[in-house]
Amino acid sequence: MASRTLDELIDMLARLPGLGPRSAKRTALHLLKNRDTTMRRLAAVLAKAAADVRQCSVCGNLDDVDPCNICTDPKRGDSQICVVEAVDDLWAVERSGLFKGRYHVLGGTLSAIDGIGPEELGIDRLLTRVENGVEEVILATSATVDGQTTGHYLAEKLASSSVTTTRLAHGVPVGGELNYLDDGTLGAALKARRPVEPSPSDL
Amino acid sequence: MASRTLDELIDMLARLPGLGPRSAKRTALHLLKNRDTTMRRLAAVLAKAAADVRQCSVCGNLDDVDPCNICTDPKRGDSQICVVEAVDDLWAVERSGLFKGRYHVLGGTLSAIDGIGPEELGIDRLLTRVENGVEEVILATSATVDGQTTGHYLAEKLASSSVTTTRLAHGVPVGGELNYLDDGTLGAALKARRPVEPSPSDL
Repeated sequence: MASRTLDELIDMLARLPGLGPRSAKRTALHLLKNRDTTMRRLAAVLAKAAADVRQCSVCGNLDDVDPCNICTDPKRGDSQICVVEAVDDLWAVERSGLFKGRYHVLGGTLSAIDGIGPEELGIDRLLTRVENGVEEVILATSATVDGQTTGHYLAEKLASSSVTTTRLAHGVPVGGELNYLDDGTLGAALKARRPVEPSPSDL
Repeated sequence: MASRTLDELIDMLARLPGLGPRSAKRTALHLLKNRDTTMRRLAAVLAKAAADVRQCSVCGNLDDVDPCNICTDPKRGDSQICVVEAVDDLWAVERSGLFKGRYHVLGGTLSAIDGIGPEELGIDRLLTRVENGVEEVILATSATVDGQTTGHYLAEKLASSSVTTTRLAHGVPVGGELNYLDDGTLGAALKARRPVEPSPSDL
């Protein structure tokens, strides 16, 4: 219908998550209108990222260097490891600005159906790291069935070591209206109620 | 936050229409998980399309060759020119499979505010083409104020030549329910009512 190159471009764009055939066409035309400012730069940065971005062999984060900048940052402490499912969860924790330890990125959750076991999630690597002066492992897996199952498995594995294992608190989201909250969250928030303090305690 | 390359990639992806910062992150991670099948291929096809896809100097369509494959297709007739606003409108008309003439892609609509006049839309080029054996110009601009204004301007310009100028019919969309139709469209469909024929007439 369009030119062969354009068809190929639209086809590739349509495979991206969130872009269907129609928005792929719109995106292709937008790119062709902005060849130098967007299209060629996007092509270059895609090729560069495909070549340069690698998985950190220590924690599983993505970075241009291995070990990653978080693992080698001297301003961060070695006593805490925060376990997250994926790199975007690590980014979410970083955005909070409250955690100054290291990470372990699982890269998924335990799943018998998908054949994801402890090896795929680098759990042995985590247990080895824990033996070297780590005091606390914070389980920051998602509050989904799979995330919680994986968290429970890790908590069991860590029970025999000397580290403290903690998990994120469940409760009312900051800014959330009680009225719109699901019963499970409200119940969890009620059970985990805390004495009112003059100022919130830090992490 | 992420690596510098990854930040740059997310920043570029977030500029695409329909992708916000959050979906840009998701897309970047998806691409990094599929480096060979998607990421490198997308980079290559973007670079290729940026270099090869050009605007047809006859009709304004986008293709790898100039004049484009539609302008040089010997199976299409020279007696009809369909005027569309943009390349994706041309694609839409092509999808109908009913039009076998040539096109003129305006590349926009007349707009005093945006400084788009007849020169920007290649209207002189269209009028020159019309002088060489064209019998019908089909105005397929959008049924918006700008599209209709541009259509009226073109109809006036073409009035002095010998071609027949037509426009797309307004009416009930095929598959559309009357109940959900706006009054303007229903009124237009009523005014343009046609005798019931045994089989629909062709273009």
